[in-house]
Amino acid sequence: MTKQHSRNRPRSAPGRRQHSAADSKDNWLWGHHAVAAALGNPRRIVHRVVASPNAIKKLGGLSPAPEPMHAKDIDRLLPQGAVHQGVAAQCKPLAALALEDVLAAAPGIIAVLDQVSDPHNLGAIFRSAAAFGVGALVLQTRNAPEMTGTVAKSAVGAVETVPECRVVNISRSLEALADAGYHTVGLDGGGRADIRQAIFGAGRLAIVLGAEGPGLRPGVAKSCLELAHIPIDPNMESLNVSNAAAIAFYEAANAKTEL
Amino acid sequence: MTKQHSRNRPRSAPGRRQHSAADSKDNWLWGHHAVAAALGNPRRIVHRVVASPNAIKKLGGLSPAPEPMHAKDIDRLLPQGAVHQGVAAQCKPLAALALEDVLAAAPGIIAVLDQVSDPHNLGAIFRSAAAFGVGALVLQTRNAPEMTGTVAKSAVGAVETVPECRVVNISRSLEALADAGYHTVGLDGGGRADIRQAIFGAGRLAIVLGAEGPGLRPGVAKSCLELAHIPIDPNMESLNVSNAAAIAFYEAANAKTEL
Repeated sequence: MTKQHSRNRPRSAPGRRQHSAADSKDNWLWGHHAVAAALGNPRRIVHRVVASPNAIKKLGGLSPAPEPMHAKDIDRLLPQGAVHQGVAAQCKPLAALALEDVLAAAPGIIAVLDQVSDPHNLGAIFRSAAAFGVGALVLQTRNAPEMTGTVAKSAVGAVETVPECRVVNISRSLEALADAGYHTVGLDGGGRADIRQAIFGAGRLAIVLGAEGPGLRPGVAKSCLELAHIPIDPNMESLNVSNAAAIAFYEAANAKTEL
Repeated sequence: MTKQHSRNRPRSAPGRRQHSAADSKDNWLWGHHAVAAALGNPRRIVHRVVASPNAIKKLGGLSPAPEPMHAKDIDRLLPQGAVHQGVAAQCKPLAALALEDVLAAAPGIIAVLDQVSDPHNLGAIFRSAAAFGVGALVLQTRNAPEMTGTVAKSAVGAVETVPECRVVNISRSLEALADAGYHTVGLDGGGRADIRQAIFGAGRLAIVLGAEGPGLRPGVAKSCLELAHIPIDPNMESLNVSNAAAIAFYEAANAKTEL
């Protein structure tokens, strides 16, 4: 398998105003936590930091020192509706890892996201991954959102600490993870085991999450060693995907503590 | 305590276009699940249903039968950016319950939301509440979002089944819940017990969640019988509030099953 890098293709999100400078907007991060974490990440190349006079006072000595800029002018640099709290940083996107890099680091818990498309959900999943010791998030090179400022804002800094890994083919990656000793558990409403049983006793664990709505694609489900469900009321079809991820990561962290 | 009703004040959400018809936009629901659930709710008064020819084909016999309307015209009825999937319904907001109504129904699990403000998070919390058998969500009359179409969309139908209760004062309501035999557990990063311990063995349980960022207000925290934390990595400050709610509801449902 060849090394995969995060692409940096301009995207037109629904409802976003079209600008000629749309490309560069994809390279802005905003919000206190997201910017502070990016500046504190030695792997992150930062081109420019802007902050309102209030934010400069509140955040103290950022490095590099921000250019003072009024909040309304920061608005214009960012996608419409970005809640920037007076601070934004233009950064080079972090290079994504290849699966072999992740396998070399051998984290105890990995999450694999099959076509999770909402950037707020993806950000919240990064945040929960950092909270529960998930050592990498594996995404497809296609059909998954780029690591935009929206993802970073929802992740409140966790995109700086949880490695992102991009792979061409999720099913083949699950086979590679199984070969490397990972118990690959797909979350699926029809899965026989419940999530706590499925995770119990696994030394190395990969949790596989499908898209909102359709869930895991059949080929991906087939490539998991086990399918497991989160027990919910039969009248509800599913949970929000970031909520399901949080529960699975929480159970995985508990199981590690109990080992 | 007098009966509290959900207010229907027009709100100007950030980034939303300003229209003179903004009020009536607050009474629209959209999306397949949200609309189908509203039409299936005998308590819901529906004024009007519109659907694209494709959606009419896909959804089958809705009652009342929708007016056929092109997706672009549906766009114009709804707040900017609403992902309506070709279907929308103009409905009377559901009347919120008073706390005494909830106490009379005596559900095993209640959730109390102290100033949760993001409508997507609130919707996801409704969805998880329905999934894990939480019998009511208690919100403040002030400082909490109205039950807009955005909340209903994120809740995929759960706003029709999980009763909303509005109270003037959260702390006093927690005391009333404790008097009625509820073990009131506030989620707080500094809480001594972990969530599983705190919930264990409680016959009736009220889970109290604070706002994103500041968390529980001190007066509200003091009014809880116990404060509990979800064990997370010390480098992370907190979880997304809907993710924290999902974990707490999941544990509460598990504890009920084990009783």
